[in-house]
Amino acid sequence: MKYVRFKYKDSICYGILRDLEITIIDGSPISKHTKTTGERVDLNEVELLAPLIPNEIIGIGANFIADENSRPGVPPSTPIFFNKPKSSVIGPNKNIILPPGINSVKFEAEIAVIIGKRTEKINEENYQDYIFGVTVGNDVTSPEYFREDGHWFVGKSFPSFTPLGPVIETDVDLAELSITSAVNDQPFQDSPTSHMIVSIPQMMAYLSRVMVLQPGDVILTGSPVGADFIEEGDTVTCTVSGVGQLTNTVIRSECTNKVKLK
Amino acid sequence: MKYVRFKYKDSICYGILRDLEITIIDGSPISKHTKTTGERVDLNEVELLAPLIPNEIIGIGANFIADENSRPGVPPSTPIFFNKPKSSVIGPNKNIILPPGINSVKFEAEIAVIIGKRTEKINEENYQDYIFGVTVGNDVTSPEYFREDGHWFVGKSFPSFTPLGPVIETDVDLAELSITSAVNDQPFQDSPTSHMIVSIPQMMAYLSRVMVLQPGDVILTGSPVGADFIEEGDTVTCTVSGVGQLTNTVIRSECTNKVKLK
Repeated sequence: MKYVRFKYKDSICYGILRDLEITIIDGSPISKHTKTTGERVDLNEVELLAPLIPNEIIGIGANFIADENSRPGVPPSTPIFFNKPKSSVIGPNKNIILPPGINSVKFEAEIAVIIGKRTEKINEENYQDYIFGVTVGNDVTSPEYFREDGHWFVGKSFPSFTPLGPVIETDVDLAELSITSAVNDQPFQDSPTSHMIVSIPQMMAYLSRVMVLQPGDVILTGSPVGADFIEEGDTVTCTVSGVGQLTNTVIRSECTNKVKLK
Repeated sequence: MKYVRFKYKDSICYGILRDLEITIIDGSPISKHTKTTGERVDLNEVELLAPLIPNEIIGIGANFIADENSRPGVPPSTPIFFNKPKSSVIGPNKNIILPPGINSVKFEAEIAVIIGKRTEKINEENYQDYIFGVTVGNDVTSPEYFREDGHWFVGKSFPSFTPLGPVIETDVDLAELSITSAVNDQPFQDSPTSHMIVSIPQMMAYLSRVMVLQPGDVILTGSPVGADFIEEGDTVTCTVSGVGQLTNTVIRSECTNKVKLK
């Protein structure tokens, strides 16, 4: 099933997408029993939004190998997890805005796993029970705002830095997905989920013991080797096989002064 | 005005506290025009909860000097900001739970500023317009779960790691507050807000240019020099002058295995 969130007749609606037709449903589908309203609308008549308003956004860093020969012998004792504010989310076809005083940012195509049930204890055997679905994410990053001592919050939090969408796909086999990206139609990233260092079941099991995972939490599961920089006018497309294509174009900030303490 | 959130007759309510009496109000006071229901209840008859469910929790690291002689000559080019998940919040008198396999955690008494209005541009002159109020926070931290390369997410995200409360005070002069803490009645921290390296107006102005600040966002504004470790059975009290006292006791996790990747 493919779920979408969209603007239609000045309202924000959720719906089920089949081919080019959306069947409108009553309320957010995540962890709720929703009913269709019976109303149908053509995909081309609506403005798609990010397919959910996340509860929390958690990312994992440095999680892909280039090939099996470069796989580390032991897993990290503490993986690099970070979180991003919800105000950084935009939908498909919206603009990625460069931070003030910055000429280029990094794109990072990712599988975004959406949690469907509250949990404090996921096992690798039952992790699928806690997944509502999967969408495509772009973990946009401004390394110029990173601190040398490893704190990433500022460089990952600017408005528009978390494109998500266009659909939430609920029928996927996470072990069989591939992630690709392209800038202005030139290919950049292309890796299967088997090139993850920490697999999705492993990271869900770990995270659910660190924090309570809740419906609407989004886990950005890491970006393949080959993420690069984009600048004003570039169009980046992130693709997850069987899930969708997420396209966004880069524009400049209205403000030219780099953010700094006064 | 002092606002509280509490459990009463199996419901979760908000109210205004005067002396020992709560006047119940209709809905969350933050950024909403609420009405009193007319119902009054004795403070001793209710169970106080964290005074809000935050939208985002943003913290700042390493933000206090011991005295004016140790103030750095230049402000940090990028301050250490981080965020904590909402699922880490507990209220006053609730237990801080040690993470699995951990014998002690750090307490950090802090002023927690609560944003009242959506904003993308705060100036140091108008910052007070965007503050709903102030509560007491404890940024509990497990350094054993920090990464050596500076990523703090895991070590700051466990359930119970963000005690908040007991009240939101809306009438405060942030420049005149002091923060103290005590463990089992032995004093530990004691600093005025003037010992902050990045002042509250400065960090609000900076943060509002990095991310969109929204009603219910909580900014943990940094902890005075002297934060220390607490272990099972310890009771920690964090105090902000004119705002309140937040007390929590430490217990062990039911699970003894340190969280690790499998």
